[in-house]
Amino acid sequence: MKVVALSGGVGGARLVEGLAAVVRPEDLTVIVNTGDDFVHWGLTVCPDLDTVMYTIAGLAHPEQGWGLAGETFHAYGMVERYGGEAWFRLGDRDLATHLVRTQALLAGRSLTEITADLCRALGVAPRILPMCDAPRPTRIDTPEGTLSFQNWLVRRRGQVAVERIWSAGSTAPAPGVLDAIHAADVVVIGPSNPYVSIDPILGLDGVRAALAERRVVAVSPIVAGKAVKGPLAEMIPQLAGRPPSAAAIADHYGRLLRGFVLERGDDAPEGVPVLHTGTVIAARADRERLAREVLAFADGRR
Amino acid sequence: MKVVALSGGVGGARLVEGLAAVVRPEDLTVIVNTGDDFVHWGLTVCPDLDTVMYTIAGLAHPEQGWGLAGETFHAYGMVERYGGEAWFRLGDRDLATHLVRTQALLAGRSLTEITADLCRALGVAPRILPMCDAPRPTRIDTPEGTLSFQNWLVRRRGQVAVERIWSAGSTAPAPGVLDAIHAADVVVIGPSNPYVSIDPILGLDGVRAALAERRVVAVSPIVAGKAVKGPLAEMIPQLAGRPPSAAAIADHYGRLLRGFVLERGDDAPEGVPVLHTGTVIAARADRERLAREVLAFADGRR
Repeated sequence: MKVVALSGGVGGARLVEGLAAVVRPEDLTVIVNTGDDFVHWGLTVCPDLDTVMYTIAGLAHPEQGWGLAGETFHAYGMVERYGGEAWFRLGDRDLATHLVRTQALLAGRSLTEITADLCRALGVAPRILPMCDAPRPTRIDTPEGTLSFQNWLVRRRGQVAVERIWSAGSTAPAPGVLDAIHAADVVVIGPSNPYVSIDPILGLDGVRAALAERRVVAVSPIVAGKAVKGPLAEMIPQLAGRPPSAAAIADHYGRLLRGFVLERGDDAPEGVPVLHTGTVIAARADRERLAREVLAFADGRR
Repeated sequence: MKVVALSGGVGGARLVEGLAAVVRPEDLTVIVNTGDDFVHWGLTVCPDLDTVMYTIAGLAHPEQGWGLAGETFHAYGMVERYGGEAWFRLGDRDLATHLVRTQALLAGRSLTEITADLCRALGVAPRILPMCDAPRPTRIDTPEGTLSFQNWLVRRRGQVAVERIWSAGSTAPAPGVLDAIHAADVVVIGPSNPYVSIDPILGLDGVRAALAERRVVAVSPIVAGKAVKGPLAEMIPQLAGRPPSAAAIADHYGRLLRGFVLERGDDAPEGVPVLHTGTVIAARADRERLAREVLAFADGRR
């Protein structure tokens, strides 16, 4: 079974780790949001790509959901001492990823090629594709003006009201993205933030049309009315005008879905087949178990 | 007494630390070689400027003569894992210096301004000037062709024969360099490699003419026929056609010198007043002692 997963950072990366354990590497393609990418300390940082890569490589920090296990912050401490930009921390080993990537971009290699190189070096076997090779930054309109995603989330700690979320820049999907979707038996939308992690992928040229012909299932990032991680629970009332719930996620994706996976006890949305199961996958074993259940469920939705 | 010091890396930096202990900060200007500067991992690295800055700040590694005390190499290890350029190691905290500098250069600040900012942040009070704001890379002609300095020294471990050493790029001294020399009561040429650390400074427009009117004294980097650090002892036979000695250094500078400081027991050069003293200054107390002796000697050479 050929599987495509659409993913943002933490939640999506954890499900992808489970998928990587149960799908043959040559049958798994992960299309990753690049809307959060930004330039920091002069380096191109791709938070979601790196979280997915580090997670599959077994290098991710087990709890915090970003960065590397056992990471140090010596360069950061010195940047702070110099009075440099200290609002976003980059770890020492993580820095190497951004240094190597930035140099390769300046040398003319594409983000798709670079991501493949980095993954190969870390022993990541499934294909990880950035959604775009060109910048496609997420913009957040607020009462204080339009902010970049990292400015809104990290510098302003997600405390500024969200009026609208949109994407700037290129609308061309990266090479391989549409082909992977066309070839997929199943497309899994990970338990990521639909507004800032999945919508940027869905908004690229041809992606929605390609997905319309596939068995697409989504896993809810909302459990018992709360987001497992990040600002999603606060965004839903502002953007959808309703309380946060798994059903609000399913309704957001609408007719795109052939199935929806949500936590036991959460209210099911209308109009789409559901699978109730345990969707909290902080533990490794749960990631693999959920991946198996999601694929079996999707396989029955043909 | 207004003092200007010309310096390369390790040896020069140690004497400069001594000078900084005995000269008022507003009376001390250090003009530092930038011929070794290069771009590594996409970052502008200035080895001699940083060695001088870290040494005065008390942050330098006490023995190895480059880098920071207690430095870690986590980013480097990860770059190596990615198959990146691993022939030159940059430490984690040292990386911050290059990141901040590279960003500031891209933002349009000059190397002189950036160096002043970095020094201020580290509490370095004397004025540290790069010899040039524009690149002035040292080139080494060898039987295998022309190599950049770091390629010759680090990548090739200084094992390739040296036929000629020259400087490419701009010949304009950085702002403040000529004024500092004109205002100096004493100019001290540190115990640095004359070919690759001092000659690049001397070759800049107007520097030799300005020095001709000053009391210039040099401290020998050769002690008992050996270089305290680096490839100097092997360079002298190749470039001057004689065995390495303190006298060979004095003869290299020739009529520029009003005085020459060398190790007790080393043969004095002809035609220049000398001070025999202890010139090995690995210990802090010796740096200050030598600085006092050099200034008193120079003051008597009026």
